[in-house]
Amino acid sequence: MLKLGDRTFQSRLLLGTGKYPNFEIQKEAVRVSEAEILTFALRRMNVFEPSQPNFLEMLDLSKYTLLPNTAGAKTAEEAVRTAQLAKASGLCDMVKVEIIGCDRSLLPDPVETLRASEMLLKEGFTVLTYTSDDVVLARRLEELGVHAVMPGASPIGSGKGILNPLNLKFIIEQSKVPVIIDAGIGSPKDAAYAMELGADAVLLNTAVSGAKDPVKMAEAMKLAIEAGRLGYEAGRIEERDYAVASSPMEGLLPT
Amino acid sequence: MLKLGDRTFQSRLLLGTGKYPNFEIQKEAVRVSEAEILTFALRRMNVFEPSQPNFLEMLDLSKYTLLPNTAGAKTAEEAVRTAQLAKASGLCDMVKVEIIGCDRSLLPDPVETLRASEMLLKEGFTVLTYTSDDVVLARRLEELGVHAVMPGASPIGSGKGILNPLNLKFIIEQSKVPVIIDAGIGSPKDAAYAMELGADAVLLNTAVSGAKDPVKMAEAMKLAIEAGRLGYEAGRIEERDYAVASSPMEGLLPT
Amino acid sequence: MLKLGDRTFQSRLLLGTGKYPNFEIQKEAVRVSEAEILTFALRRMNVFEPSQPNFLEMLDLSKYTLLPNTAGAKTAEEAVRTAQLAKASGLCDMVKVEIIGCDRSLLPDPVETLRASEMLLKEGFTVLTYTSDDVVLARRLEELGVHAVMPGASPIGSGKGILNPLNLKFIIEQSKVPVIIDAGIGSPKDAAYAMELGADAVLLNTAVSGAKDPVKMAEAMKLAIEAGRLGYEAGRIEERDYAVASSPMEGLLPT
Amino acid sequence: MLKLGDRTFQSRLLLGTGKYPNFEIQKEAVRVSEAEILTFALRRMNVFEPSQPNFLEMLDLSKYTLLPNTAGAKTAEEAVRTAQLAKASGLCDMVKVEIIGCDRSLLPDPVETLRASEMLLKEGFTVLTYTSDDVVLARRLEELGVHAVMPGASPIGSGKGILNPLNLKFIIEQSKVPVIIDAGIGSPKDAAYAMELGADAVLLNTAVSGAKDPVKMAEAMKLAIEAGRLGYEAGRIEERDYAVASSPMEGLLPT
Repeated sequence: MLKLGDRTFQSRLLLGTGKYPNFEIQKEAVRVSEAEILTFALRRMNVFEPSQPNFLEMLDLSKYTLLPNTAGAKTAEEAVRTAQLAKASGLCDMVKVEIIGCDRSLLPDPVETLRASEMLLKEGFTVLTYTSDDVVLARRLEELGVHAVMPGASPIGSGKGILNPLNLKFIIEQSKVPVIIDAGIGSPKDAAYAMELGADAVLLNTAVSGAKDPVKMAEAMKLAIEAGRLGYEAGRIEERDYAVASSPMEGLLPT
Repeated sequence: MLKLGDRTFQSRLLLGTGKYPNFEIQKEAVRVSEAEILTFALRRMNVFEPSQPNFLEMLDLSKYTLLPNTAGAKTAEEAVRTAQLAKASGLCDMVKVEIIGCDRSLLPDPVETLRASEMLLKEGFTVLTYTSDDVVLARRLEELGVHAVMPGASPIGSGKGILNPLNLKFIIEQSKVPVIIDAGIGSPKDAAYAMELGADAVLLNTAVSGAKDPVKMAEAMKLAIEAGRLGYEAGRIEERDYAVASSPMEGLLPT
Repeated sequence: MLKLGDRTFQSRLLLGTGKYPNFEIQKEAVRVSEAEILTFALRRMNVFEPSQPNFLEMLDLSKYTLLPNTAGAKTAEEAVRTAQLAKASGLCDMVKVEIIGCDRSLLPDPVETLRASEMLLKEGFTVLTYTSDDVVLARRLEELGVHAVMPGASPIGSGKGILNPLNLKFIIEQSKVPVIIDAGIGSPKDAAYAMELGADAVLLNTAVSGAKDPVKMAEAMKLAIEAGRLGYEAGRIEERDYAVASSPMEGLLPT
Repeated sequence: MLKLGDRTFQSRLLLGTGKYPNFEIQKEAVRVSEAEILTFALRRMNVFEPSQPNFLEMLDLSKYTLLPNTAGAKTAEEAVRTAQLAKASGLCDMVKVEIIGCDRSLLPDPVETLRASEMLLKEGFTVLTYTSDDVVLARRLEELGVHAVMPGASPIGSGKGILNPLNLKFIIEQSKVPVIIDAGIGSPKDAAYAMELGADAVLLNTAVSGAKDPVKMAEAMKLAIEAGRLGYEAGRIEERDYAVASSPMEGLLPT
């Protein structure tokens, strides 16, 4: 069970809501994924312009927890202002801090990310923070009191999977709050791997919305995350260079 | 649906029967895995010594297809003799050719493997052949008429996963018969990856039997194989070095 | 030519001075490496205790540039105090900021690293900063005015080589100051790879001092760094999945 | 020193002669590489058509050993015929067996490769055989009596480097004859890696001839191979997940 702030969730898949082919496919992908938490960029979802169509209106919001993120903010102040607007609109008191520091790689800015997390915690938000896989930065965030650290596997939308499993392992081992692997997951094997490393959850968007068949990929990801979690709990065999026969031959039928 | 010779199967997981902690755990792992095909070494299973206890006797054999292998044979002739004994015992007319050419790495012998496959095909067996990931060797086996090629991901029991995905991709692309990734799978991510590459099935043994909790790992592998297959069918996003925002910011809320 | 502050160097290898079997081997390794910059931990070298034996005393210091580092400092203030002592002793006005934030992984602390770099720049030091491979953090350091950024390839002393070449590539592409790959290099291939990615230099210690034959490894590393630099300048072929014959066969001898 | 048949060589780089921009660049690249062995496809080099221009005529052949290969042959018989023609022309009694079994991947055919090697050995040739990285196949070739096994790192011309270092390690450990890594090397780090694994030599072509600056890349490869060899001899540090300080801090300056 995943615990974020004072909420608990059965699903360990957080699903982003950006860039699906259309609302029908998106709705079905969300359903099949069995995700309970949906993330969206506050600045993108027309949440402040009720006259515009909006995917969130199509959902039965009693069934989902919304996790708005601050994407588009370049500074802590911008991020805080966006989060406050969301809170005032009654959207959510849980927020994902996302402050991009490089337009090309979309990698996060550690300084503004730390500042925004601290400011939002002081305002009483449940704060989940997207960060690089810098191990000590993740520890610093946890020391601030964030409710989850969300290290990226690789750049947003890159589909490159887990570039540095060692750093993720270090972060997972040191963290007492949930670790959610966020960004870069490209296919089910990547999601399974994140969970096998001991992550508490995975956040996906492009890997599903950009697949040729987003609904089928949503199901694949759901299963992969379950598989990875079970694999983590089951305790995998160690790797070894030299083979070990699965069918030992000692004392058997003479040749 | 997996088609091997004239049989069809829902499950894409072939499960080995070696080295479980005990028969009870093994039975439960087999059940949870939903495998329909069980492999075993003819020379190990006491199949020729009915007085000895035998895991296969504990199973409802009407529910499983047995895939005996020729492990322990060093030459084609030995492999053929083993298969003939199995056939005479009424065990199965489907056989997995497995001829190890190196006791240290347990990697297969291409020459004896080709010869044994050819001889067994002539005797009317349904032949599934364990082979290295040598691409042209796999093609040669297919030209002989084998019913499936079974390239190894890495050495038997090593748990190192897929060492050369490019070779497996080449084999899968060129093959008209099923390709079953066999040997070396260590964790669910590896099984998912094999399926994402387009494999028709995965054969596992040590990754399940050697896990701390074999039953839980059996379930993890079942899910991972389903996830990988769905991911393959769904069509994953391409990898790219430079990020693409999942939440584009153009024309939105001014900062 | 490598330019750091107002000094220039022919060699692109910076060599650490820790943990050699003895002074004779160390001296010979330094000679063979052709390194012009030697790094050492101020706190370790007895530099403040002239009564103790000291490797630096064995060197002809007119031939080397010393790059003291602040290893052992946990805060910016400690790092600055250490650097000031070194300056007062006339050792060097160039300093490598190294502030470890995790005793287990020896990975750097981004917050104290930024602070220390800023403080030392204000005091007029030539500042080279050891950092994680966080891309935006490296940019932040450059914006402060550091004279080189020194991202780690993997944890200090791990010998794991380059865990995340994509991040290093991003850092190299964005940086106008020299990028020195620091920490984690295990063997010549890793050093060559760092240089092929476009790094300006490599800093090594354990890979040489901990090798079975440190002198021979020092020579290997010198050559690998030259090889990697030349390879970078020469412009490597692109990777492709499908082969291209190096010996095209069109219109040749009929078979 | 590299020993092939009854010849010895200082250089561990074998250089191919295909697809250079022009003869002048090629000649300079050969010179700079310090290669002593040059490979070429018999069918391509107009060696049987003395009226045509030919790179080999530009060389001082007293300084080089020519290693003709049988590329273009699809069967053992074709390969043997090609080699016999070369011998009759007085070109060389050393031959590289190269029989491609897949036009798309240019990977070798194990069956024809074994047959051709055996036939050419019987005719008294010094036989160096290009093969996949199939471990038992390499052993089989050695048992036939070949003078060197030449496993591919990845497909010819792909530049993908070493896809399966474990298989190469196994081949190197088991072989009493020289192991020359052939095909797929893309950059100096790959060549260094091959040598660090313990290979006796590396054969390159496209990585040099296809580089933007082939002459500079030739020098890079020469240095990388020396670096890798020295690194192998020097005995690298082991990889470890957890860091070890290169500058231990015990009992030093109090903070």
